[in-house]
Amino acid sequence: MRLSTLALALAFPLVAAAAPTTIPDAAMKTAAELRERALADTLAWEITEGLTTEVGPRLAGSEADARAREWMIARFKALGFDKVWTEPVTYPKWVRRSEHAEIVSPFPQPLALTALGYSAATPDGGLRAEVVAFESLEALQAAAREAVEGRIVYIGTTRMDEKAGRGYGQGSQVRGRGPSLASSKGAAAFLLRSVGPEDTRLPHTGVTRFEDGVAAIPAAALSNPDADQLERILKRGQPVVLRLALDCGIEGEYTGANVIAEMRGRSRPNEYYLTGGHLDSWDLGTGAVDDAAGIAIATAAAHLIAQLPKRPARSIRVVAFANEEAGLYGGREYAEKHRKEIARAILGSESDAGSDRIVKLTATVKPEARGAIDRIAEALAPLGIEYDRNAPGAGGSDLSAVHAVGMAGLSLHQDTTRYFAWHHTANDTLDKVDLEQLRQNVAAYAVAMYLAAEAKGDFGSKPGAFARKP
Amino acid sequence: MRLSTLALALAFPLVAAAAPTTIPDAAMKTAAELRERALADTLAWEITEGLTTEVGPRLAGSEADARAREWMIARFKALGFDKVWTEPVTYPKWVRRSEHAEIVSPFPQPLALTALGYSAATPDGGLRAEVVAFESLEALQAAAREAVEGRIVYIGTTRMDEKAGRGYGQGSQVRGRGPSLASSKGAAAFLLRSVGPEDTRLPHTGVTRFEDGVAAIPAAALSNPDADQLERILKRGQPVVLRLALDCGIEGEYTGANVIAEMRGRSRPNEYYLTGGHLDSWDLGTGAVDDAAGIAIATAAAHLIAQLPKRPARSIRVVAFANEEAGLYGGREYAEKHRKEIARAILGSESDAGSDRIVKLTATVKPEARGAIDRIAEALAPLGIEYDRNAPGAGGSDLSAVHAVGMAGLSLHQDTTRYFAWHHTANDTLDKVDLEQLRQNVAAYAVAMYLAAEAKGDFGSKPGAFARKP
Repeated sequence: MRLSTLALALAFPLVAAAAPTTIPDAAMKTAAELRERALADTLAWEITEGLTTEVGPRLAGSEADARAREWMIARFKALGFDKVWTEPVTYPKWVRRSEHAEIVSPFPQPLALTALGYSAATPDGGLRAEVVAFESLEALQAAAREAVEGRIVYIGTTRMDEKAGRGYGQGSQVRGRGPSLASSKGAAAFLLRSVGPEDTRLPHTGVTRFEDGVAAIPAAALSNPDADQLERILKRGQPVVLRLALDCGIEGEYTGANVIAEMRGRSRPNEYYLTGGHLDSWDLGTGAVDDAAGIAIATAAAHLIAQLPKRPARSIRVVAFANEEAGLYGGREYAEKHRKEIARAILGSESDAGSDRIVKLTATVKPEARGAIDRIAEALAPLGIEYDRNAPGAGGSDLSAVHAVGMAGLSLHQDTTRYFAWHHTANDTLDKVDLEQLRQNVAAYAVAMYLAAEAKGDFGSKPGAFARKP
Repeated sequence: MRLSTLALALAFPLVAAAAPTTIPDAAMKTAAELRERALADTLAWEITEGLTTEVGPRLAGSEADARAREWMIARFKALGFDKVWTEPVTYPKWVRRSEHAEIVSPFPQPLALTALGYSAATPDGGLRAEVVAFESLEALQAAAREAVEGRIVYIGTTRMDEKAGRGYGQGSQVRGRGPSLASSKGAAAFLLRSVGPEDTRLPHTGVTRFEDGVAAIPAAALSNPDADQLERILKRGQPVVLRLALDCGIEGEYTGANVIAEMRGRSRPNEYYLTGGHLDSWDLGTGAVDDAAGIAIATAAAHLIAQLPKRPARSIRVVAFANEEAGLYGGREYAEKHRKEIARAILGSESDAGSDRIVKLTATVKPEARGAIDRIAEALAPLGIEYDRNAPGAGGSDLSAVHAVGMAGLSLHQDTTRYFAWHHTANDTLDKVDLEQLRQNVAAYAVAMYLAAEAKGDFGSKPGAFARKP
């Protein structure tokens, strides 16, 4: 036996001996009981109803945002969480006061639109300018400055349309990058078609971002019927002049907070399953599907687990994240603050895609923990949840930054058909939440969180564990 | 033979001999051709698209209302109608400038509402008052003045709900009579839940009416989700204070016009089939289903008939009625002006329930003309239109007054499911119009109008003919 062979023989068993993470059979039995109890639970509904009714819209940085934190702290305490605290999150404070648009010529009439987050205001008395339309960001990029300068740039190819293969990501690119690109070419303002699938006059907001050194300009989304109308008028070939009056903009910095509650584990309380949703909402609706429901699902699931006769080994930590909408501020702050001790966050799942049924499980964990995820999938199957064993699962929007610094992720993918019709619009209200589907979500979260918290072995969380390959 | 018997013998044949109105076989053949041509026609779409795009919202008495008349006159002329004219219609001019509502306490947040037609404005700076809710007009009627005085009266039982058996008529009663009743008891304002079936944040407007001697007060409709929200908050039992700021009201009188176009008949041109729709719309949407489509259907059907190698015996008259929405002003003016010569209007059908498929035919005609209606029903059957031979048919909203002074009526009832979801809201826009269903409407109108205009004999129109029995 040569030395190299000996070395290999010594080394290989060490690698192979990295013990697989397992789920005890007793835990599977408890999970099945949790699942049934969750399907009859009403706490998630009560939290969704309470937050959307008693606080309502809660734009990050607004007075209502502060009331939402107080509401959430009180609710966590009333539910008996072992520890409730906040961690500050600072971000630019953007405000929306009023918004109005009209076609001045050739066919005077109002248009329904809504400013994008971080949009600048129009000058006092509003802004009048001619519209110039582009088919895409690439076409705008290719345009000469003279074709853009002083005009209102419009891109209308952002409607969500499954038949045409256009989704939310594609439209969000235009929303995120279009205003800055238009401004860099001297545009007076930027308009896009709502990034949504609905023929409703309620426009879809969302955040945009101006690159360093590029002046913020007024930027807004037309509802789909209004975008249709503008396009019909543009097609007639006469110059189209709009008047925009947007009273909105950044007003300094604001320090809000992530609101955090923990249910202590039985034997390894310093390790925790990380779950939650985001506490802020856009101001147009009451943020029921985006994301009161998410907070409610995570909280109700944690609460059910806390009621068990025997707690799981590890803790459950619920975070109501600050200012997700304008740029994942709460999630990024959490990742930064907890980066060094990220191994303590054994696995994470956030709920931020509405309240409709969970249809699929995916996860990103170390290979030795795949068998434990298989067991979680087995416990979720009675809820009609499929398991895609090969797809990644980063755990949700606010957890993307936490995953990026090394937390293992488990994603419970919802049916988002109705979510994309309503979120970011005035239609995001409680009537859109379906109690039975909400309960199925609670059941799935309770099962996954409990089993992971009770697992023998970890899921691979450690600093830098899941960094993307360059 | 006694003299009396002789008289009876002479008289009886006269009564029996009142000749039945008939439809010639050749006309049935032409109607079948018209039907097929209508199903491939695009004129109704072009008119709907043109009026909603080039004029847009056209509140009666507004500057856009005047533009709509010019647009319609030009369109009728361009289509080659033999005569195009206007007949003045005068009414109170109501304007809407802005509207805003919010919950002041206990849970501050905005509410989506829209003022009702003829609502008064709130005082400068808005109105703050506590809400008092009633289950019905009867409950409000029974309330003591002290329970109402200075408060905002709310009635929330007005949602359209087929399962609960509540329809548009029931809600419209509350809308029409509630504000005046509340004002008579000293209420500061009146709110109701939108008279519509949709969970959308777009409230449903419509007209109200203050009785003589009763002061107009601010009156508005909350969207259904906002009404739900208000009710959830009221249920919590604390006093609920709202702030309303409605800038709207009556600004003197306005004289608009019915815009009328006629296609001359071959042999009896002084007699005419009366059809049309209303030219005004509520200002929230572009009035596509209510009622650009109606005008388009009637106009396109008349135009198809005008293109026949041989015109029907009688004329076809299309009326774009003025100010239907605030109280049938155009229809009532037409009835008054043409009352004495109403026998010339042999039969009438107006389209004012959207652009979806016609599902049923009914008519109110003299008994001797029932056989001719049977023949029309036969010609409509291939379009999937049922025939309810026993139900009345007054011809449509604007024609109700004309029918009341003696015009025979034929009603082509549409599937109104989608119509009631959208009309009177900002969602009444062109995207809601379905080309194929619109064409089916044109086919039905063309067939009915042609056959009646070509009938041998009349349908019973004469002054006072169809007056309701007391």
